[in-house]
Amino acid sequence: LNGSYVPAEQAVVSVDDRGFLFADGIYEVIRVYRGRPFRLEEHLRRLADGVAALRIPFRDPAGLAGIADRLLEENGLRDGDAVLYIQVTRGAAPRAHAFPPADVPPTVFVSARPFTPYPAEHYERGVRAVTVPDTRWSRCDIKSVSLLPNVLANQRAKEAGAFEALFVRDGIVIEGSHSNLFGVFGGTLVTYPACNYILAGITRACVLELAAELGIPAREGPIPFETLWEADELFLSGTTTEDRKSTRLN
Amino acid sequence: LNGSYVPAEQAVVSVDDRGFLFADGIYEVIRVYRGRPFRLEEHLRRLADGVAALRIPFRDPAGLAGIADRLLEENGLRDGDAVLYIQVTRGAAPRAHAFPPADVPPTVFVSARPFTPYPAEHYERGVRAVTVPDTRWSRCDIKSVSLLPNVLANQRAKEAGAFEALFVRDGIVIEGSHSNLFGVFGGTLVTYPACNYILAGITRACVLELAAELGIPAREGPIPFETLWEADELFLSGTTTEDRKSTRLN
Repeated sequence: LNGSYVPAEQAVVSVDDRGFLFADGIYEVIRVYRGRPFRLEEHLRRLADGVAALRIPFRDPAGLAGIADRLLEENGLRDGDAVLYIQVTRGAAPRAHAFPPADVPPTVFVSARPFTPYPAEHYERGVRAVTVPDTRWSRCDIKSVSLLPNVLANQRAKEAGAFEALFVRDGIVIEGSHSNLFGVFGGTLVTYPACNYILAGITRACVLELAAELGIPAREGPIPFETLWEADELFLSGTTTEDRKSTRLN
Repeated sequence: LNGSYVPAEQAVVSVDDRGFLFADGIYEVIRVYRGRPFRLEEHLRRLADGVAALRIPFRDPAGLAGIADRLLEENGLRDGDAVLYIQVTRGAAPRAHAFPPADVPPTVFVSARPFTPYPAEHYERGVRAVTVPDTRWSRCDIKSVSLLPNVLANQRAKEAGAFEALFVRDGIVIEGSHSNLFGVFGGTLVTYPACNYILAGITRACVLELAAELGIPAREGPIPFETLWEADELFLSGTTTEDRKSTRLN
């Protein structure tokens, strides 16, 4: 946290932190397989894009790789399955909507925790999902901590006994509350285009890359709500969700 | 903060606070005139509505009045012009989108600070405003800390030398980044209807009440962008903005 390595319970931020007051920050979640962060560079690049989009004066996204490394070490996760979490906010300053003076340092928080896998059944038998209206803002491409609609949607899924809530915007099923959605229609993979309405996941990009390598036809396009039932299969992708939701694709 | 009275610099929350991680909380700003909180009951009622909408298990909104009182006292603001700030989040828990177990206590933060008035010129000569696309989510009626779009809009106003940014949604100018908008058209006050697209302010309600008392015609309706220029006058209302933006209305 801001250059110090502290036990989780000592990791605290000011109530004037703009992450707490305004959701004025961005984050990344990175999966670590046997001590090795997966696609770390892509995550750090997206984080750099996020701070640039929000004009948070955080200069050293690349330096986070070393911090992640040390955190894995200090937490005995050198060879473990883990999750890295990174959050960068615009720092702490007396409450006012507009940006604080340029000399207010961003808050930088990184943590490493052991990864608890989902039950194998999720991958073997599949999971349930519900659809919910997409109430989010129109810059979902920025991985900001402005996640309240995602929280409410995910809770609705949970209460319906489902794993995920799929956002429907203008009749199109575009992505999940914390995962991207793929459909298979007549042998072709379909997923919503990377635009301002979705958070184009790094695992989503992996799936598209692998499809290209394997010669599986894929396209970025809309999945209208009423065509969901015509899909041969549907699956979710995400950093911790991974891409194993479909048994048929494995 | 959570039942303790501490100096501002000791007021800290866990990095696992859902206010910090997910913007999972609501807030209120209350203006205090010579030691007396203005429309405190209405603010606390709206806060109670907010925690109910988000299903945050915070049981004692009414108890905040006593806390506010003591904070004004402790800060030497018993007779002062001040601002009370209240924020209630869903508490601190290991990061997961869905709600944490019911026994996780909400985080409750209240502060009192002296009020710094805007320059008299703002009220005498008026202020500038810019229009920006409304990128916000569709539950702006919940006074949540999910304020990133408001931050970005307000910063745009500031950089344009303006006081406020007015959100335009589907061609309608609906409200400001931290204030409501009123127009006067042929002697009738017009302001956007209280619905899910705006935060219907308590000062806005005061203005409508006063208009009714004074026999000034008022209606809730859209102000299309292209009619802005036809307004006899425009003014902003808000807790700290107050309702003095228009010299003619005073």
